[in-house]
Amino acid sequence: MSNKPGFGKSCVVLLSGGLDSATALYSARKKGFSPVCLIFDYGQRHKREIASAAKISRAAGCPYKIVKISLPWQGSALLDKNLPIPVPGQRNKLKGSGAQQLSGSAGIPSTYVPARNTIFLSFALSFAETIGAEAIFIGANAIDYSGYPDCRPGFYRAFEKVISVGTKAGVERRKIRILTPLIGLTKAGIIRLGTDLGVPYELTWSCYRGEARPCGKCESCFYRALGFKQAKLQDPALRAK
Amino acid sequence: MSNKPGFGKSCVVLLSGGLDSATALYSARKKGFSPVCLIFDYGQRHKREIASAAKISRAAGCPYKIVKISLPWQGSALLDKNLPIPVPGQRNKLKGSGAQQLSGSAGIPSTYVPARNTIFLSFALSFAETIGAEAIFIGANAIDYSGYPDCRPGFYRAFEKVISVGTKAGVERRKIRILTPLIGLTKAGIIRLGTDLGVPYELTWSCYRGEARPCGKCESCFYRALGFKQAKLQDPALRAK
Repeated sequence: MSNKPGFGKSCVVLLSGGLDSATALYSARKKGFSPVCLIFDYGQRHKREIASAAKISRAAGCPYKIVKISLPWQGSALLDKNLPIPVPGQRNKLKGSGAQQLSGSAGIPSTYVPARNTIFLSFALSFAETIGAEAIFIGANAIDYSGYPDCRPGFYRAFEKVISVGTKAGVERRKIRILTPLIGLTKAGIIRLGTDLGVPYELTWSCYRGEARPCGKCESCFYRALGFKQAKLQDPALRAK
Repeated sequence: MSNKPGFGKSCVVLLSGGLDSATALYSARKKGFSPVCLIFDYGQRHKREIASAAKISRAAGCPYKIVKISLPWQGSALLDKNLPIPVPGQRNKLKGSGAQQLSGSAGIPSTYVPARNTIFLSFALSFAETIGAEAIFIGANAIDYSGYPDCRPGFYRAFEKVISVGTKAGVERRKIRILTPLIGLTKAGIIRLGTDLGVPYELTWSCYRGEARPCGKCESCFYRALGFKQAKLQDPALRAK
């Protein structure tokens, strides 16, 4: 097994520029795949994650494509600058090791983008089918996460069924699997795995606010800090500042 | 039940500008829904269907949104102007009443766009969830059709499962159904239904070649002509020329 891209079966990796998807990319390489990254410019207010994703892709020596989507509706604090980005403490019903540190009133947070992962996977599927890739990697995680329904294992199994019945590849019995190597890991576990794999965490961007520096307050910053703390590692992105 | 939009439960209608989706829109109205149309500008070579879709939406008195997608890959004769548009007789394995009139070598035709309906449905789902719509209408048809795998009933059932497990609406038990009122109709049956419903077929565009007039030769023109012939009706789009 080579750690260099260009060998092995091809796969599409959904790369957001965050910590999880960067780890998923390096996991795909480690498993012997030859990844092509797919990056989305979908009007997210933390647009700077796109530049991070491109840098990570280049660091891993993998080609990437950017898909530009203009959603003519909003419905999410990640898209609508008039809505506040929630901070931990504003809501409850979170699951996982960080949950007890958060309290509040609502279930799924306002940063949920309706059907976002369904949209991302559908593009990844179109691309995978076009290039003959055998798998789609997504850095979804259902432990230390924000409670988004499209980050849970059942969603990915349901989407695999869509692939098998709704594509030419499926009809011709060429399987395109959805692989979620981080789904059962804690944030600390992801960071330990990524550190072993040499993920350049200093290039990743997690903060939902797209400002010059991470805010340190939003849920995404919260889980990142919790993960590094529990992994007993220093966040190289902070060190790099 | 009112035939005017603005009453009833809201729904999203995927409107391509062709005969089938226009009939699906009028079926949705007839069923008492208040439709909002979703039109895609995805780099199709028959781009003029977009203008047709907008006209149909206005004729039905329904609002519409246009989603612009730039796919950074091709893999389909509908996207790639260097590939020929197949004509009936170039392939076999078609099913339905028109199938016996076609012969050739391949199964799914080169006009198949990888995962196109999955992409369209995922946007429709995002929109439906955002506006609180209860259904998504799509004019898919599995009788007189081109053999696309994402036009078959099993695909839509699989996608409904994705909705129920992968969205906030699903988690909160607000059902978003995918309705395919034309799935079991012949092309002639669709045209008879649409004629009863007052669908302005003179505004629809079916030809895969985006030229000034329908080519009359591609599969889409073939099925349209077959449908009008079997319904014993004249195609008003031809009369309008």
